[in-house]
Amino acid sequence: MSGRVRDEAAISAAVTALQARFGERVSTSASMREQHGHTLTWIPNQPPDAVVFARSEAEVVEIVRICAAHRCPIVPFGAGTSLEGHLNAAYGGVSVDVSAMDRIVAVHPEDLDVVVEPGIRRKALNEQLRDTGLFFPIDPGADATLGGMAATRASGTNAVRYGTMKDTVIAMRVVTASGEVVVTSRRAKKSATGYDLTRLFVGSEGTLGIITELTLRLSGIPEAISGGICPFPNVAAAADAVIATIQSGIPVARIEILDEAQVKACNAYSKLSLPETPLLLLEFHGTEAGVAEQSTRFGEIAADLGGGPFTWATVAEERTKLWTARHDAYWAGMAMRPGCQTFSTDVCVPISRLAECIAETKRDIEASGLFAPIVGHVGDGNFHVLPLFDPNDAAEIDKVKAFVGRLVERALAMEGTASGEHGVGTGKMKYLEAEHGRPALDAMSAIKQALDPQGIMNPGKIVTI
Amino acid sequence: MSGRVRDEAAISAAVTALQARFGERVSTSASMREQHGHTLTWIPNQPPDAVVFARSEAEVVEIVRICAAHRCPIVPFGAGTSLEGHLNAAYGGVSVDVSAMDRIVAVHPEDLDVVVEPGIRRKALNEQLRDTGLFFPIDPGADATLGGMAATRASGTNAVRYGTMKDTVIAMRVVTASGEVVVTSRRAKKSATGYDLTRLFVGSEGTLGIITELTLRLSGIPEAISGGICPFPNVAAAADAVIATIQSGIPVARIEILDEAQVKACNAYSKLSLPETPLLLLEFHGTEAGVAEQSTRFGEIAADLGGGPFTWATVAEERTKLWTARHDAYWAGMAMRPGCQTFSTDVCVPISRLAECIAETKRDIEASGLFAPIVGHVGDGNFHVLPLFDPNDAAEIDKVKAFVGRLVERALAMEGTASGEHGVGTGKMKYLEAEHGRPALDAMSAIKQALDPQGIMNPGKIVTI
Repeated sequence: MSGRVRDEAAISAAVTALQARFGERVSTSASMREQHGHTLTWIPNQPPDAVVFARSEAEVVEIVRICAAHRCPIVPFGAGTSLEGHLNAAYGGVSVDVSAMDRIVAVHPEDLDVVVEPGIRRKALNEQLRDTGLFFPIDPGADATLGGMAATRASGTNAVRYGTMKDTVIAMRVVTASGEVVVTSRRAKKSATGYDLTRLFVGSEGTLGIITELTLRLSGIPEAISGGICPFPNVAAAADAVIATIQSGIPVARIEILDEAQVKACNAYSKLSLPETPLLLLEFHGTEAGVAEQSTRFGEIAADLGGGPFTWATVAEERTKLWTARHDAYWAGMAMRPGCQTFSTDVCVPISRLAECIAETKRDIEASGLFAPIVGHVGDGNFHVLPLFDPNDAAEIDKVKAFVGRLVERALAMEGTASGEHGVGTGKMKYLEAEHGRPALDAMSAIKQALDPQGIMNPGKIVTI
Repeated sequence: MSGRVRDEAAISAAVTALQARFGERVSTSASMREQHGHTLTWIPNQPPDAVVFARSEAEVVEIVRICAAHRCPIVPFGAGTSLEGHLNAAYGGVSVDVSAMDRIVAVHPEDLDVVVEPGIRRKALNEQLRDTGLFFPIDPGADATLGGMAATRASGTNAVRYGTMKDTVIAMRVVTASGEVVVTSRRAKKSATGYDLTRLFVGSEGTLGIITELTLRLSGIPEAISGGICPFPNVAAAADAVIATIQSGIPVARIEILDEAQVKACNAYSKLSLPETPLLLLEFHGTEAGVAEQSTRFGEIAADLGGGPFTWATVAEERTKLWTARHDAYWAGMAMRPGCQTFSTDVCVPISRLAECIAETKRDIEASGLFAPIVGHVGDGNFHVLPLFDPNDAAEIDKVKAFVGRLVERALAMEGTASGEHGVGTGKMKYLEAEHGRPALDAMSAIKQALDPQGIMNPGKIVTI
């Protein structure tokens, strides 16, 4: 970390100026501040000094210019569902809440895209799109805002087929640290003109600017969907089935793994009776004939590798129940030890190393005496571990932290990354040098310095300058 | 353009130092220098002062450090097939030829990726991969190097299904202006840790560093391929068929348009007898049953929109002949007026505007009295125009330049881009401000300044500092 400290005078001057301009839309109440420093994280709360509620891009520009004039830190806020302390106000400052900027600006069905404000949440977006026959496929566990999802390069269960936010954001409008509005790209599907600012801002976690508009690629709602569950004797066999499926070109839409511990948690929480062995949950999108063919072929692959039977159906009701249980994995884990919190973490490795990485992690969990279900987007080599801990037990917290450190080291040793989709925040900054190497981190710092020379945009995240 | 001028003393000192280190692998012969400043472009040749042939990343580091010590411009060179003067040595300097760095470093069939050196060409890569059952789908017209394809964010006929270089480069090693080796990402399929350096370097046209290694995503060679030709009464009907096809979720692998002029040129050059009306060329990838279903459904859509009949087959021979003709479109156009050159240019618009953009462009071609076939990756809204001109006729050259200016303006007015896949080079820099706006261009300049403060990496391209 840099030697930077909190600048009381600067913050106080900025908050006063914001109050003069925005009146009651600036809150300094303790509860509001705490809520805006709070996320689904194990990291202790660091509240901002004030929260300002923006209603338009023009207002965001005004807020940034006021903060820039005083060199006051800015932390953009959407839904507060991030997992690695992205919203912690490490040096205090102002939380800029864009959740009220939640409109759909334009839908272009012929181009399969939609233009939205950053505060719209993913479920609301899809509800409003329903009549168009199109949907937005990226589905992190939480009902996050699209601005937050872009800022953290989110993905989810559909990523194996539809990509992540880096693949589905076509263009953005971003207010940078100087209060300029950068338009990152045109609405055309591709371009070869100039540096790819869109993907530079995707995943930059608010450290380079505040997203004020997004153009997103949509997909057609599939004519038919089939899905089901396939049990495996062990994680290695399940991972082999995933590799064979993807290699054979089956365009699987979702392929998720739940280990025994997670299946138990889901059975208890979601009142299911799934077999308590490693499971793959699958979904196929296409025509009626297409999904039938894909499902049958997957069943054959699974059987060849000692798994199955793969029971699948195209009935919506059963499928919804299953995927709701999958999305509730986080809560199901927590419910296994009431009063406990979950230290939700994720890593991602090349898929060829996935079985080995999960197996070693399970041995580590056992040796550590932790309860830590595993659930993963196995088609991407990305898995989550959800160790439970008692927030009042300092020794257990240390044990979990040490476990997460070993998990990240293990992933990095297998050509993997410290996070497939949760991001860096304040929680994983310490692993960046080991992952990227000094020259790459220096390049990131140089970019941060170039675009935010005062270091006001979400300071203390990703890189310090 | 900046006020920068060619620095004779710096260049001379760098070339002397390179000769001392690399001996005969530094060439200053006029023919070698001219060949390295030459590309498939209408832009007059600006040769470098010397060409140095690198054999390894370590050598590239040495070369860059020598040039950096003298502030001597560096222009990376692969195959010399770019179209917009990317390799012109605007301020002289050294061409760094990496074409001998053409090995496959590692293939990971389970992860569907390959690690290559930058000088390998796309056809050689696929020939060497054939036994693995995998292929690399990006296919620009030329047999370019993978390093050059990444540097220019290339795409091609498969992009509608498989994406462009931005989607298929997983990671790179890049020697930056300071002679450091930046590793842009891990080999895992996705990551949420830090700025997306991979995609920042993809499309940066050598202005931020020299690519020395690439990890590329591969796809399984499809079990079955079907393809064929579908005539349409006009371009608008063809474009409507494309939109309907994509909206309905048919995962078309290739969907290309040829206008009447291009069909005539291809018939003459490739000895075919295609109907001389706007044509869509299509290809579907999948299982035997899958491609039959896709082909049949497309045929129905085409018939509904006044096109057809769509004749398709899964026989490889006919298909190869057709796609070879498509890839030879550039040469076919040239053959229509012997002694002429082609001013190959491309734009990309949202697909909903494609028919209108092509129709207006055709009226412009007619009014201008030009011969300019049109061919396009219509599934991406991207099309090429290939005006022919007599290189000795200054008035005709001016006429073509004015036409290209209007074409770009037209695309920009339709939310499009000045280039879908050819890139900026020196040819299209003048359109960048109109396309991206001043704040975005300022951000690009700030990034360039941050990563190449001396301005030695391919100066005079994309942004000036």
